[in-house]
This record gives sequence, C-alpha cells and structure tokens, in this order.
Amino acid sequence: MSEPKANALVGQAGGPTVVINQSLVGVVEACVQAPEIGHIYGALNGVQGVLDENLIDLGLESPGDLERVARTPCAALRSVRKKPNAQECERMVEVFRAHNVRYFFYIGGNDSAESAYLLHQVAQGMDYDLRLYHVPKTIDNDLMVTDHCPGYPSAAKFVAQAFLGDNEDNRSLGGIKVNVVMGRHAGWLTASARLARTSPGEGPHLIYLPERPFSIDAFQSHVQDAMALHGRCVIAVSEGIHTAEGELIAHSGEMDAHGNMRLSGTGVLGDLLAEKVREVVGPKERVRADTFGYLQRSYFGIVSEQDAKEAREVGRHAVQVALQGEQPHGSIIIERDVVRGVYIPRYGCTDLENVAQKTKEMGPEFLAGDHDVSEAFTDYLWPLVGDLPRPGRLSDLPVPKKLP
Amino acid sequence: MSEPKANALVGQAGGPTVVINQSLVGVVEACVQAPEIGHIYGALNGVQGVLDENLIDLGLESPGDLERVARTPCAALRSVRKKPNAQECERMVEVFRAHNVRYFFYIGGNDSAESAYLLHQVAQGMDYDLRLYHVPKTIDNDLMVTDHCPGYPSAAKFVAQAFLGDNEDNRSLGGIKVNVVMGRHAGWLTASARLARTSPGEGPHLIYLPERPFSIDAFQSHVQDAMALHGRCVIAVSEGIHTAEGELIAHSGEMDAHGNMRLSGTGVLGDLLAEKVREVVGPKERVRADTFGYLQRSYFGIVSEQDAKEAREVGRHAVQVALQGEQPHGSIIIERDVVRGVYIPRYGCTDLENVAQKTKEMGPEFLAGDHDVSEAFTDYLWPLVGDLPRPGRLSDLPVPKKLP
Repeated sequence: MSEPKANALVGQAGGPTVVINQSLVGVVEACVQAPEIGHIYGALNGVQGVLDENLIDLGLESPGDLERVARTPCAALRSVRKKPNAQECERMVEVFRAHNVRYFFYIGGNDSAESAYLLHQVAQGMDYDLRLYHVPKTIDNDLMVTDHCPGYPSAAKFVAQAFLGDNEDNRSLGGIKVNVVMGRHAGWLTASARLARTSPGEGPHLIYLPERPFSIDAFQSHVQDAMALHGRCVIAVSEGIHTAEGELIAHSGEMDAHGNMRLSGTGVLGDLLAEKVREVVGPKERVRADTFGYLQRSYFGIVSEQDAKEAREVGRHAVQVALQGEQPHGSIIIERDVVRGVYIPRYGCTDLENVAQKTKEMGPEFLAGDHDVSEAFTDYLWPLVGDLPRPGRLSDLPVPKKLP
Repeated sequence: MSEPKANALVGQAGGPTVVINQSLVGVVEACVQAPEIGHIYGALNGVQGVLDENLIDLGLESPGDLERVARTPCAALRSVRKKPNAQECERMVEVFRAHNVRYFFYIGGNDSAESAYLLHQVAQGMDYDLRLYHVPKTIDNDLMVTDHCPGYPSAAKFVAQAFLGDNEDNRSLGGIKVNVVMGRHAGWLTASARLARTSPGEGPHLIYLPERPFSIDAFQSHVQDAMALHGRCVIAVSEGIHTAEGELIAHSGEMDAHGNMRLSGTGVLGDLLAEKVREVVGPKERVRADTFGYLQRSYFGIVSEQDAKEAREVGRHAVQVALQGEQPHGSIIIERDVVRGVYIPRYGCTDLENVAQKTKEMGPEFLAGDHDVSEAFTDYLWPLVGDLPRPGRLSDLPVPKKLP
C-alpha cells in the first residue's frame, strides 16, 4: 500500500469582499487538478474551524456549483476575526497532523497574514512540514508588497458608481453632500470616488484621506470655496480621517480582537461633518450625509471583471507555488506590468513577514494637495476597475426670456 | 401666415430616481413627433424654473444624446422641492402665456401632483387653456390609483441586491445587522428587501414597515427569537417606523417645504436600533447598522429594465393623452394586466385630485404578521424588478473529526 497523499486545507478570514470566493474556488480547482494533493478541505470560520476541527470536503463540489460560489460575494466558508495564540497554533498543527494536512491556504488581509505567520513559526518549532500561504483579499487595498489587493477593484467600482449617481443627485437638488467611505488607515477606497469626476466641475469636489491630517476649520473653508466655485459640493471622506495628532475625528469606541477600532456600521462621522458644514453654510442650504457602510464590500451585482479574474488567479497561484516547493510559505502578490500601455498582472510570492500586520498607505505621488488625488492615482486604478457607466447631459440651450 | 403652434413644457421635481430621465425623454420624443406641438421646452428646477423663466429648448437634442440622458440617474433638468402659492401660480401662467405654452408635463411624486393641481386651478380661474399632466415618479411607490410608480422597481432592485449581499456578509461574520431603508410613510421599498430571502433561513429575517406600529420591546424580543432560530439576524427597517401613537422612532428634526420631516441623510435611527439590540444580546455579539441613504434612489448601474421601459412609456403616454384632448389634465397611471400568468402594464390617466398629496400605504394583503410581508407582495414585485443574481452555496459536507 502506497503512502496516502498529503491533503490541503483552505480558510477565509476578515471582512469579506465580493470576489473572496473567486480565490477560494481558485485554490480548490487547482488542488483538485494537482496529482500531488489528496483531499482539499475547507475550514469553517477560518482558524476557528481548524481549532474546532470543523472541516468540510470541497473536492466533491461540481464545477458548476463552484462557479456559482465564485460569483457570490462574501466568505462561502464563513469568516472569523481571530488571532490565534501559541497554544492555539499548536492545537491547529495537531489538527493538521490528524488529517495529514500539509498545505494550508489562508485567504485574508494583513491580520490574517499575521495569523498565518504565527502558525508558520509554531509549525516550524514543532518540526511539522507545512506549506502555508496567505492569499490576499481586502477592499482596503492596504497590503504591503503587492501592487493591489483582490477585492479592492470591485469595491472601488461600487464606490465610483455610487459617486457617479450621487453627483447627479446633488446636481438635481443642490447643496452639500458628505459621503463616508470605508478605509481604516489608508485612503485607497475613498480615493476611488475620484473616478466619478468625469470633468472638472463634477463631484466629488473634495476628497479627504487618512494619509493627510484632517482639520475641521480647513474642511469648513474648503466647503465654502467649493460652494462659491460650483454652487454645490459632493465630498468623499474616509472613515479613518484623523487630526494631525492622530486622533480619529469620530469613532465607535469599540475594538476588535486584532486591536483595531471599529469605524463602520455607525453614522456618527457623517452626522458630525454634516453638522460642521451647517455651521458655515447656514440653515437654508441642503446638507446631507451618507455612510456607505457594508454595501461597499458585499453588494451583489457590482464586480470588476478584472478583479474577479485576478482573485481567482491568486488562489490558483498559491497552489502552484506550494507545489513548486521553492517557497514553502509566503503571501501571494500581484505585480504590475505595463506593455505598450496595456496593464498586465503578474503573480508572485513574498515572505509572510513582509505582509503580516503591516499597512500600505497611499504614496505622496497619488495625493494632490490636502483634499484631492492625482492623475497618477487614476492611471493606477482605471485598468483595475474597467469601464464605468457615463452620464449623459442635456445641452441646456436657453430659451430667450420674454417677461420683465 | 398661420397661427403659431402651441408649445409644450416639461419639468422634474422632488427626490430623483434612476429612471426619472426616461420619463423626461419619453415626453420629449413624443412632443418632437407630434405635429400639433411647436417647441418642447424644459423648465430648470421644476416650478422654480418656470417662475424665473429659466427655460431650455429640448427639441434640438439628438436622439443619441437623449438616449444617454435617459440612462442617467436623477433629474437632468434639475429638481426642486417647492409648493407654489396662488400668486406664484399666476406668475407661472403668465410665463406660459408669454411662451405660448399650452402643454405642461410635471414629473414628480404626490407633492408635485399637488403643485400641478394648484396650478391647474389657478390656470382655470384665469381662463388660460392649459393641458397639464402629472407624470409619476417616486422610489417610495406611495402614489394613489396607479398600480406602482416608475422609479420604485429600480430602487427595489437596488435594495434587494444590497440585502442579497448583506445576507452573505452576515452569514460570513455572524451577529445582527440592521439596515435602514428609505420610505417616509409607506413600507414598499423596505418590503422589497424580502426578494433577497431565497429560502426560509436567509435574511432579511425581520422586516419593519410604517404600516405597523413599532415597539422597541417587541423588536428586542423578535431579535432574540431570530438569533435562537438562525444564529444570526438581518433586519430591514423603514426610516418611517413609528410608535402606535404615531411618533417617529428617530428623526432629524428638520422639515421640508411640503411639511415633511426629513428622515434620510442621517444615521440616527440605525445607531439607535443597534444600541437597542446590544441591550438584549450583550456586548459579545457583533451588531452593526447601515443606513442605505441616497444610493437607493441615485445609484448609477442598477436599473430594472421593466422600470426603465415603463418610465419612458408614462412620459410618452402623457403626451398622447394631452393630444387626444379628452382629459385636459390628470395624473398618468399604470394598470396591471396579468394574461396567462404574464404581467402586462397598461397606461391610463386619473384626475389630479386623486393623487395630489395623498399617500398609498401597503394593504393588509401585502403584510404578514408584524415583521414580515406576504407572498402576495413578492408576486406583485417580481415582475417589476426582474431577475436578480442568485447566491451559490457550498454543500458543507463534513470531514469526520479525528481528535478528542
């Protein structure tokens, strides 16, 4: 009797994206196709499922069912926000041993990369041969090394289309509109609102990112300037804006297991900024605030096709790297090639410690002044998001007045 | 020299929808095709544009440009929330006389129907021959007589797809999610969340509408029941929910020109309900609230094709009725025919006073208990919204446990 083949396990963690299941299916289909791999299992609720030995068999899913799962937003394996301690990592290795799991793929953001890194160190200390890969996903686009993260382009598309419509709404009824966009430490998602500005007078007229200190006074004066210039004002604000001293402008006061302050799921920041706008424009102007919230990461029906393809491919690539064996652990990355002006993604792998718990902010080349982003940024983002709907406009040919 | 032809004027008012420009273009193209009509003008910002004589010539727009405008959300003519007084109505009639406007089409909700009704009465009193039609639009679906309102099916589609994604998000991370949906007096839009419940265990698990009194105590107990049953809970709440005494659960304190309390553009209700949930489920459960806000009426890219067609057709039909001359004023309606199970819309016209400032709530046949809607309601809504994306699911085949 020959030795049983090594098995593979995949899990999902952190806040979902609309393409996180593309990566899951990419891992599963590559494992199913690999003669070296026996079973491909899924851990329910990420590391929690490993700890509880809550595993499911993914090798029996039909290609058609997998395709439907790939096109469904959010974690089909269910997610978790949990940082395992050393003892829990040891328990996980015992579970791996019991099920002969030698490949582990963990789809998540920088917190999940940290969990993977801790687990890798413990497995090494226990002399357990484990090939372990972090597969990137996050709408925040804040992972190090990689050019961008799967999940971000689709969320950016959702945000840009929201601003495209909201700009028309604001043009219809006038006044000032504040839109609060997700993004804890980095402004990537808020900055994507910029794609909606089809010509200079259109919204968003002001864009505020965590990369720049935020001051209420400056904000109020920008709004007054924009009103004088455009007669109306659409504003994109990151939920993570803070003062020069690093103090958040508004927050919920609630922390998660990774020590992150919860910012979403509350209208506090939008309501506060609307109040600050009212202070300077007076009670007669129409002032409204929306907090886009969880729709940005979960809306069913708005997907960047490029993002969907790349999310699938990072999953497949993780399995390829695992089988090649040169990098026994790491985090999958996307590199950007531009050949004769055409964007082409290349896939690679970097060390886990380069990604774990680190955050990539927007570089200065992507920022413009203290309330806008640069053309270099829109050049970066367009190929990832793809085509957006384009607004049509009337010519507004005036009829000569006849009355005094 | 023959007498100059009578001219037509069109305006848009109230909160926009994503298909309100379909109705505008329907009016314009039918007027351009009508030999009886001279020019087709547009009033910028509705009745305000008439008062200020801010008219534009729409007859010179190319069909291609009009088509692009038709597919763009929100009021291309810009909107207004203004109820003209008698003196202003007289001024409007003077403007009509100066420009030989004998046809006036006003695209809006029940407040705009009221404005049209006031104007009609003043024009009659001044013996000015004016054919005047209210062309219905509202995401609230709360107009009398008509089976449904253009704008509602697309907003319902946006909301249903948001809940489809949000249900997956909640399934991924667990806990309780409160989503606040637009709808001041009627629950139609909130009820559309029900289309996302693809099977009994899926969200939205609880649906709260203004047609039923809302009690915090009952709400807290429903949430506890849903958590016991499903282990998670997605909730759809109308912004207009109120106590048995008619007191709003939360509001901004701000009124508009028509005496309506402003409910949207603030996160107050969602934050309050999340707090009430936390009181009964404890601090360990994940509790989040989103207020969908203005995206529901303006999002660029989510449109019901049936709605787009019908919105175009109510505009065209208004011109037909005007030219036939049997009903010199009125509000355009849609009637529902069902032929061998297939939904077919028919267009008609009712008196303005049947629609002006009245509100149609959901009938008892569309409600189920105090926190759900009936199958009769989903039967009513499906043909208007059309196909929605369908979530795919893993089979969750468990791997036998091997560890104690």
